[in-house]
Amino acid sequence: MNFKNFIILILFCSNAFSQTKIEQLNLMPWPQNIALNEGKFLLKSNFKVNITGVVNPRVFTGTTNFLRRLDGRTGMFFSQGYIKKTNEEPNAQLQINSLKKGSVGINEDESYKIEITSNKITINATTDIGVLHALETLLQLLQNDSNSFYFPNLIISDFPTFTWRGLMIDVARHFQPVDVMKRNIDAMAAVKLNVLHWHLVDDQGWRIELKNKKKLTELASDGNYYTQEEIKNIVKYADERGILIVPEIDVPGHATAILTAYPEIGSKYVKDPKEQKQTQYTIERNAGVFTPTLDPSNPETYKLLSEIFDEVCPLFPGKYFHIGGDENEGKDWDANPVIQKFKEKNNFKTNHELQSFFTLKLVPMLKKHNKEIIGWEEIMNDKMPKGTIIHSWKGPNEGSPAGESLINAAKKGYKTILSNGYYIDLMQSVNDHYLSPIIPKEAVLTKEEKDRILGGEVTMWSELVTSKNIDSRIWPRTAAIAELFWSNEKAINLKSMKKRLQFVSNRLEELGISHIKNKKMILRNISNYQDISSLENLSNICEPLKIYTRNKGGTEYQMFSPFTLFADACTSDASNAIDFNELVDKYLQEKKPEDLSRINHYLKKWIFMHSDLVHLSENAPLIQPVLPLSQSLSNLSKELLFAFEDKKQIDKSLLNELFAKCNSKNYADVELAICSGLEKIIDNLN
Amino acid sequence: MNFKNFIILILFCSNAFSQTKIEQLNLMPWPQNIALNEGKFLLKSNFKVNITGVVNPRVFTGTTNFLRRLDGRTGMFFSQGYIKKTNEEPNAQLQINSLKKGSVGINEDESYKIEITSNKITINATTDIGVLHALETLLQLLQNDSNSFYFPNLIISDFPTFTWRGLMIDVARHFQPVDVMKRNIDAMAAVKLNVLHWHLVDDQGWRIELKNKKKLTELASDGNYYTQEEIKNIVKYADERGILIVPEIDVPGHATAILTAYPEIGSKYVKDPKEQKQTQYTIERNAGVFTPTLDPSNPETYKLLSEIFDEVCPLFPGKYFHIGGDENEGKDWDANPVIQKFKEKNNFKTNHELQSFFTLKLVPMLKKHNKEIIGWEEIMNDKMPKGTIIHSWKGPNEGSPAGESLINAAKKGYKTILSNGYYIDLMQSVNDHYLSPIIPKEAVLTKEEKDRILGGEVTMWSELVTSKNIDSRIWPRTAAIAELFWSNEKAINLKSMKKRLQFVSNRLEELGISHIKNKKMILRNISNYQDISSLENLSNICEPLKIYTRNKGGTEYQMFSPFTLFADACTSDASNAIDFNELVDKYLQEKKPEDLSRINHYLKKWIFMHSDLVHLSENAPLIQPVLPLSQSLSNLSKELLFAFEDKKQIDKSLLNELFAKCNSKNYADVELAICSGLEKIIDNLN
Repeated sequence: MNFKNFIILILFCSNAFSQTKIEQLNLMPWPQNIALNEGKFLLKSNFKVNITGVVNPRVFTGTTNFLRRLDGRTGMFFSQGYIKKTNEEPNAQLQINSLKKGSVGINEDESYKIEITSNKITINATTDIGVLHALETLLQLLQNDSNSFYFPNLIISDFPTFTWRGLMIDVARHFQPVDVMKRNIDAMAAVKLNVLHWHLVDDQGWRIELKNKKKLTELASDGNYYTQEEIKNIVKYADERGILIVPEIDVPGHATAILTAYPEIGSKYVKDPKEQKQTQYTIERNAGVFTPTLDPSNPETYKLLSEIFDEVCPLFPGKYFHIGGDENEGKDWDANPVIQKFKEKNNFKTNHELQSFFTLKLVPMLKKHNKEIIGWEEIMNDKMPKGTIIHSWKGPNEGSPAGESLINAAKKGYKTILSNGYYIDLMQSVNDHYLSPIIPKEAVLTKEEKDRILGGEVTMWSELVTSKNIDSRIWPRTAAIAELFWSNEKAINLKSMKKRLQFVSNRLEELGISHIKNKKMILRNISNYQDISSLENLSNICEPLKIYTRNKGGTEYQMFSPFTLFADACTSDASNAIDFNELVDKYLQEKKPEDLSRINHYLKKWIFMHSDLVHLSENAPLIQPVLPLSQSLSNLSKELLFAFEDKKQIDKSLLNELFAKCNSKNYADVELAICSGLEKIIDNLN
Repeated sequence: MNFKNFIILILFCSNAFSQTKIEQLNLMPWPQNIALNEGKFLLKSNFKVNITGVVNPRVFTGTTNFLRRLDGRTGMFFSQGYIKKTNEEPNAQLQINSLKKGSVGINEDESYKIEITSNKITINATTDIGVLHALETLLQLLQNDSNSFYFPNLIISDFPTFTWRGLMIDVARHFQPVDVMKRNIDAMAAVKLNVLHWHLVDDQGWRIELKNKKKLTELASDGNYYTQEEIKNIVKYADERGILIVPEIDVPGHATAILTAYPEIGSKYVKDPKEQKQTQYTIERNAGVFTPTLDPSNPETYKLLSEIFDEVCPLFPGKYFHIGGDENEGKDWDANPVIQKFKEKNNFKTNHELQSFFTLKLVPMLKKHNKEIIGWEEIMNDKMPKGTIIHSWKGPNEGSPAGESLINAAKKGYKTILSNGYYIDLMQSVNDHYLSPIIPKEAVLTKEEKDRILGGEVTMWSELVTSKNIDSRIWPRTAAIAELFWSNEKAINLKSMKKRLQFVSNRLEELGISHIKNKKMILRNISNYQDISSLENLSNICEPLKIYTRNKGGTEYQMFSPFTLFADACTSDASNAIDFNELVDKYLQEKKPEDLSRINHYLKKWIFMHSDLVHLSENAPLIQPVLPLSQSLSNLSKELLFAFEDKKQIDKSLLNELFAKCNSKNYADVELAICSGLEKIIDNLN
């Protein structure tokens, strides 16, 4: 081999090594089609963008934002500042073209195509909504080596599997300021979600400024509400990012806030109108399902709701309006003779029939504003117009098979979306949600029925979150669920998702999502600004209590309680717990000494962690509540170390006793997420 | 000694040990009078507040916020939610009384008195503004041991030394969203600042929505501006916290943004009106002093300004309006024959006389809205009404003695405030600012003249900050300057301030200030989400280039450039640098081996740090720019370690050469803040 060939071989090899592999890509949601090619587009500071075609102005905002994010991440100092019209830079390396103006909503063409070659990137889409998706994909495609940033040469063509890909945020239980809404809209767009369902009203608060019904915010918001201008501003912000906002005013149940302002339309029975005062409602401070319910027999109820809709509907240009309708237990209806008489007179056998009567009265009020109704599954009745969307939410926790109402609705001819399985406030592992497809595998549906299933919606109920930690509840898990909504079911792969999710989670910081930084902030407060590494170690093996077992009965905490505690810093999918539990499985299968050594390292770390926490707690009362837990873990770790080191006879009953303490879930509102690993170790000792 | 006496002795001792000492208190600004007593008020979850007297509603908001902050910090779960009227809880442990409604502004009675005994806390103030100050003091007084939180028994009576205690935030160079303004208002209130000077307009942007002059935001804001509702909302938010907002529209210089919208009132000479197009102004993207200036000879200029004031003034209920007036070099005036003729005709000898003519035309326009004028020192002329406030800003950097115009203004009968010495964008040490009193010690002033000096104002110019790191530029240094404005000069103590500042800095997180968490966020981006400890170590010994040496000539960075670089994560007063430099001084004086050992530990840390950064940079291009610096430090550290260990002959010229590289300030826009310590070590080697 001569020298020249040798050099060529080296170049070939280094090229082969630098060739991007499909496993390197951290795309989420995974695109429908992707073909990697050899080579790459090297990003340089002369990088520019050009936009052509028929475009909605949102593509200028979107592309300018794209440039700034790319610039911030790479420190490139691009010279192009603000993109304000088409064809400003005909020779730009990134060429974007769309064929027509897109409109934000359901069933829009969201498809896009990206082609990257060594000297040019082309984005083609039918609409600017597709362009926005393409730009997010491009940002996720960015690779780097030690000195440069680049995009791998490839062709992607992509489109969504489901058209309704939603996130619901409850701003009634805990109000979320404008900036929280905006950063979460940014993050939604980053993972191609397209519907923000805004739960604006519930027992704990009314959050919309109404100029004609000032009492609602004066008496039922504690001053925490959105002005109409703020609402319009958020709607515009979402529209610029391709996201539809669907407002919800939850009626006839969950009505304490409305009734705090307008007790006269409540269902509580008043024998003597003079007693009126005694029946007054007060804004709810606890969590749970409460009795205050609108009176369906009172014409004033409909007059008021109609006036409310007349003012709220114009704030939201989208086609859909969510009327809630869930969890009305009808207790006050049953106890009210006037309502009972009304039921009899109208021949309503059940409260569901009475609620259906109520719901049907709302249809024309909203039709007047060209709105289609969406409501929780309880609104389903045979008389609802077929354009109605049934929002399926009940599942095993509520005694129904998962998604039962979704299938029923589709079969009955209604459009429908699914939230059961995507209740992220339950603090379950991302795995649980990711493995819950919208349409169950066993469902037998015609094509028409299947087409009526529009998609899914993640629900973020806010009983136990504040603006400081809501991001850590929504993200990153929602990104994985977004993949379930967008990608082909063949792309759903747990292992690959977990790896990509870590990347996406980091990138969400770019958009202002505070899940990483605010965790540390809460721990700094708990530690009284001492070193937080031991608290962080503990938080990385602890998860908040799941499925409504925290705040038992909904009365332990009030809506204004301090959610600045250890559990509020912990998240689902505690990182070290996942690692430890997998490590134990691996060790028990393969019995490799290096794995045992890593297990021992964990055990030693937890022993030190506890003694450090004891030390820190001398100047930090908020550490006290976690000490019994870290103490139990430290005790068990010591015994396990002894056992591994054969220093004394294994005492299974002692180990089981110590394990039970670790597994008790009795401390600091958290559970120790390493218990499955610990239990397996104990079971396998002999 | 019998057993009983022994127990009493123990109790006495433990009480003596637990007695709070004055040095334990982390109050900032330090109160005028404080008398510590024995004992403490133990905080329990039954803690409640009661308000009596004649109060402005802001005291209800303020007290509710106080309760939530105390609750968040202690995890106490107080049952009292929202305080909405007086005398709700007559038996509450904290009793607050004020005599009359306060009003936000200058010269209000801001005094307060706090008395803490073992079972009761009493706050008395003339106005609710004083109550708000007292609540902030109370929050700073909170102490803890291992299990409980408490307030020490004491009596504080307090009032401000200066009535104008301001912070200016420039939102023109880099727009700052509503939430940034709000959290900084919270932080201002926490350290008893009372004036937010809002620099809303400059060459780089117009930030106020005007319904009658839409072109200003359409053409000169890049979409980054405050709506009128947002402005009102921020004004209200500030008022609720006792803070006056003083808006600034900077004229006749710094006018590029105004002239981008209205070129017809600019001073650029147009021979042929057809050429008008060529003289058009475009919004400025660089930093510096620019020529675009309003035309003082054109009646249209005054018509437009008057219309602007007519719309802007009603948004700000406060008494003062800042008209800027600084840095008008008059270049376009000199080059314009029409303006020259106007000067001649009016017998104006200098451009200053012409500017005075301009300024005097604004007086009645603002008087019409009951506004007094405040302006930068250049507006001073003999005809200004005596109510005018002269804002003194020039100093040695501009070739004037510090505060010269302050003294001149006071002697000429004008009210005046000082900003020279408080330019926190210069990135100097807090020490420099803290040791610059408003009234120079050598100044000879009558009582009347002294009384005209209203106070001081910190200035946060925003050429090199974004909403992500502005907090780290303003805080914590501004807290120390606030002490200079509020406290008695006898309380000014550098060592004590530094210790208390650390505490205050931590506490600012409670209010949402992001200086701690966003530093780490920027470093995570730079490290490409690898471990940031080495980058953090480096950032703790580096400070951003000072006094406008970064961004040389103002053209290296543009306003939309990515300020996500290493320098943007670094701050003044780099923590490890302070520690290291002090350590070196101590070692050179005392020559204790343990101090040498700590110096060696630092040197070894920096050697490891560099090799770790090299390793991390393999996957993080943004680390590359800091490597030459960490390399130089690592090389020097190695040589110094050799020298300490007597391993080889000391080669001074090599050491000096390596030191020069460390001290070059040529890398990554930072300077190595340990150079004074390193230099002393080298000088003392032999």
